Amino acid sequence: MDVAIIGAAMTDFGDRDGWIRELLAEAGRACLDDAPVGGEAVEHCYVANMASGELEGQTGVMNALAHDLDLLPAYAERVDQTSASGAAGVFEAYQSVASGASEMTLLVGGEKMTHRETAETADLVASVTHPVEYRHGVTLPAFGAMAARLYMAEYDAPRESLAEVAVKNHHNATHNPYAQFQTEIDVETVLDSPMVNDPLRLYDYCPVSDGSAALLFCPVEEARKYTDEYVRVAGVAGATDTHVVHERPDPLAMEAVAESGEQAFEMAGWEPADIDVAELHDMVSVLEPLQLEALGFSERGQGWQAAVEGRTALDGSLPVNPSGGLKARGHPLGATGVAQVAELYWQLLGDAGSRQVTADRGLACNVGGFGNCVITSLLEVAG
Amino acid sequence: MDVAIIGAAMTDFGDRDGWIRELLAEAGRACLDDAPVGGEAVEHCYVANMASGELEGQTGVMNALAHDLDLLPAYAERVDQTSASGAAGVFEAYQSVASGASEMTLLVGGEKMTHRETAETADLVASVTHPVEYRHGVTLPAFGAMAARLYMAEYDAPRESLAEVAVKNHHNATHNPYAQFQTEIDVETVLDSPMVNDPLRLYDYCPVSDGSAALLFCPVEEARKYTDEYVRVAGVAGATDTHVVHERPDPLAMEAVAESGEQAFEMAGWEPADIDVAELHDMVSVLEPLQLEALGFSERGQGWQAAVEGRTALDGSLPVNPSGGLKARGHPLGATGVAQVAELYWQLLGDAGSRQVTADRGLACNVGGFGNCVITSLLEVAG
Repeated sequence: MDVAIIGAAMTDFGDRDGWIRELLAEAGRACLDDAPVGGEAVEHCYVANMASGELEGQTGVMNALAHDLDLLPAYAERVDQTSASGAAGVFEAYQSVASGASEMTLLVGGEKMTHRETAETADLVASVTHPVEYRHGVTLPAFGAMAARLYMAEYDAPRESLAEVAVKNHHNATHNPYAQFQTEIDVETVLDSPMVNDPLRLYDYCPVSDGSAALLFCPVEEARKYTDEYVRVAGVAGATDTHVVHERPDPLAMEAVAESGEQAFEMAGWEPADIDVAELHDMVSVLEPLQLEALGFSERGQGWQAAVEGRTALDGSLPVNPSGGLKARGHPLGATGVAQVAELYWQLLGDAGSRQVTADRGLACNVGGFGNCVITSLLEVAG
Repeated sequence: MDVAIIGAAMTDFGDRDGWIRELLAEAGRACLDDAPVGGEAVEHCYVANMASGELEGQTGVMNALAHDLDLLPAYAERVDQTSASGAAGVFEAYQSVASGASEMTLLVGGEKMTHRETAETADLVASVTHPVEYRHGVTLPAFGAMAARLYMAEYDAPRESLAEVAVKNHHNATHNPYAQFQTEIDVETVLDSPMVNDPLRLYDYCPVSDGSAALLFCPVEEARKYTDEYVRVAGVAGATDTHVVHERPDPLAMEAVAESGEQAFEMAGWEPADIDVAELHDMVSVLEPLQLEALGFSERGQGWQAAVEGRTALDGSLPVNPSGGLKARGHPLGATGVAQVAELYWQLLGDAGSRQVTADRGLACNVGGFGNCVITSLLEVAG
């Protein structure tokens, strides 16, 4: 059964008051209003969230959301795929409709993180990795730095080319009213910022964020009852890589990105050249070129050239992260994959305001761990 | 697409050494061996687990499992619906196959709890409830006691009738080599045990447990390649009730049980009289008669008579919890709903040893919170 997305919404990302449950309700309510669809029509309600129990001591947030949005007796469930929880929610929401289990599925992704010390959230996120790496203090930011060092050495990628990713994504976010950082930066801002993991600095990394985003899914034939124009899920697939990163023969190959992309392209019957806009998982700057390569948008070792040459800018041949990406829109773990697809929804329907690009087909890639599990989604405008 | 279950396995339940990840791998490996299916055939791998992060400080357990069982590049995801996480996993595994997203889905549910103080696990489980109730100290066991008191007052249910549920389930567990308590008890054992929440005592409640259980799902047409006889998922549905229990007009109605049951029966085209065996969520003794009533097996207020009259015994007209139930098999949160369906799998295929009942069709009901979200599954033997 073909699956449509007929609504999208998100909260402001950043340092937010309130608890996870309030953030989820804010985005969920806005999404139902966006369609518009009444809560009584919702049959499944998925919450994409990695760690409300660890970070807030609050579990059962999916049942709370169903209650708060008056969705009863809708089925409720929480979905976790670490930093790719949002896209895991997209995948589950798709399956719920495609299987016939639900004719109207609300997906709300969110995370509340800024009330905790950064060291605590860093430790939580590090616990997604294999204990043999965790015990040595290899956090996700550290994996990013090692990958950047290897990438620069293997392919003569200039240090500045990584900074250009952050510069572009900050620029894009100045056009996104939901973004955490709506400020321009330049390459010097990145290179002069505090060292985090040599050679990467503060502005190579996404921030710690609060926020929530939501999407509404239904069968394509039902979508026409609500709207003339909607977005169709043309492909969606997920794949794992080794849980021990150092066991990978080529740590720069991002094999789960490649595998999930190939499966999604096969499902859609598309190829990379068909994509007009992409939202990639730039948790750390080097991940954007690595994903461009693994997804087939760039040759191996050449992904870094895209930002330098402006090909991934808003007016480039393949705009990447028009939303500002994780770097500048922010990265509330469970919200990110949902916000990526929400951005594509707005871009494909022409509702992206001053960051609007020309696009009929889009791709979102959400990365769990350091590529330990990755979900790629392909969307197109329909109606 | 019709969905089959072609393998099942579980670990011993109880006070186990090792961590969640080892328990999950033990059950998952045994399930693949049971089919037998090689890991390379698995396309989706779901882990049903409520709280590995909270209880062990270990997240990303689904990616670890995919790695440990050599399932790469299978997609991996964690599913949480509090104490009904296992059945949420069953629902997702069903949807993954029915939607065409996966042709072979491994579901492994598990929880490691006994290494923590009981007060800590009780607090974690209490955090599934609404804060307005949590703040007053209304834990799930306390909800059980209030429901028991109301049930006894409204329907003249004898106190002993609730104890009979525990007695029956302990007896059944003496025939289940995986069960946590393989010991007979009698009504006096229950009534003389330490008071927990007046009027309920220690033996009215399920224990704190470690353990894991696993199931393997594929399309019915693929099942015949592996086995002559398998189990078909005839119906599966989930529903929420109010997140604030005290807002329910009738707290004994278990409306999410009733709703999920009605939806599952409608999907299967069955009615309660078609069911030969049931696994119900006896976290506390009174929940078994309340579920019998909400699912249409007993009239309102008469569910307590079933255990007293022996109708739910192994040789009764509707054997309930032949496995020993949560009470005596044990209740490792994420494992329970998977173990319920594994028990039905063995019963329907005639592989249940000395606890075997005569059954072609079975029902499993897994309850999250105090009925805050409930999933009911209907299975039948096929081939």
